[in-house]
Amino acid sequence: MHTFEEKTLKRQTIFDGKIISLHVDEVELPNGKTSTREIVKHPGAVAVILITKEDKMVLVEQYRKPLERALFEIPAGKMEKGESPKTTAKRELEEETGYTCETLTPIASFYTSPGFSDELIHLFKAENIIKAKEAKTDEDEFLRLHEVTLDQALTLIDEQKIYDAKTVYAIQYWKFQKMMEK
Amino acid sequence: MHTFEEKTLKRQTIFDGKIISLHVDEVELPNGKTSTREIVKHPGAVAVILITKEDKMVLVEQYRKPLERALFEIPAGKMEKGESPKTTAKRELEEETGYTCETLTPIASFYTSPGFSDELIHLFKAENIIKAKEAKTDEDEFLRLHEVTLDQALTLIDEQKIYDAKTVYAIQYWKFQKMMEK
Repeated sequence: MHTFEEKTLKRQTIFDGKIISLHVDEVELPNGKTSTREIVKHPGAVAVILITKEDKMVLVEQYRKPLERALFEIPAGKMEKGESPKTTAKRELEEETGYTCETLTPIASFYTSPGFSDELIHLFKAENIIKAKEAKTDEDEFLRLHEVTLDQALTLIDEQKIYDAKTVYAIQYWKFQKMMEK
Repeated sequence: MHTFEEKTLKRQTIFDGKIISLHVDEVELPNGKTSTREIVKHPGAVAVILITKEDKMVLVEQYRKPLERALFEIPAGKMEKGESPKTTAKRELEEETGYTCETLTPIASFYTSPGFSDELIHLFKAENIIKAKEAKTDEDEFLRLHEVTLDQALTLIDEQKIYDAKTVYAIQYWKFQKMMEK
């Protein structure tokens, strides 16, 4: 299969930070011409759909500096080196929400923005959940927990308080699941 | 409402490229401590769900340098300065696929990765479509067009050929719409 491959002629590393790194690649295009590609490397992330026994979804309200505002999102976190997606998901869920679960079922995986970044998110659904303890977040994370019904979640989307890809996807998934149950 | 605001103490611009720019902000956290935030600025993007009269979705196969592979995605493109999302969507749709449409209905909007980027995607559904002419892509874009049934799209997800947030969302939306019609 012809893949329109872009051959790397030169890679320049612009930045190597605590979360992301930035490279500019000079590439050879399929027509022989050259161009540049701006590439943000990211370790990848996981996110968890958690529906409580009261049929509410657990959301985390958190300030997002790139947007200069807070969003309501499903619990999520970056992968640590050597960690499997499931291990990250269990850890982040417990840290951010205080919930633990017996089962994590993969729901979807997707690149968030393949045009400029390699960030891959793995989305799980938590099952057989237990509210074990208080949330214990990282030192520089400030979170507020919410538990919302599907109707409340749909209102939060209308109000643009839920406004990121993984959470909008998760709410659509939840709505779909509820329709299937009927 | 308490928003956990992070006050910017200093901003360092690391890179200002043709598509993205990168800043590192030194911030004051709600507890008075300081931390840094790595922020990728992006102009925003649009994407279009286009279902043909034969009930097939139009997908664009395209090499994604950050992943070193090609993906099948719904037609999409970056916003140009001063352009409205709808204008961008019409332009990109015609350039990438040769289709034009009378109506573009907003379906969803979301930040792709609010932890490190301000990229916002607006997703539209094209209606009353016309295959007007051949696709006319930018000089350094190499695309192959596909038209797929829902079953084929779901297989492409299983095969990880459809593997990005906007397209996975679009397929789920399509599946949901078809269920509602029954």
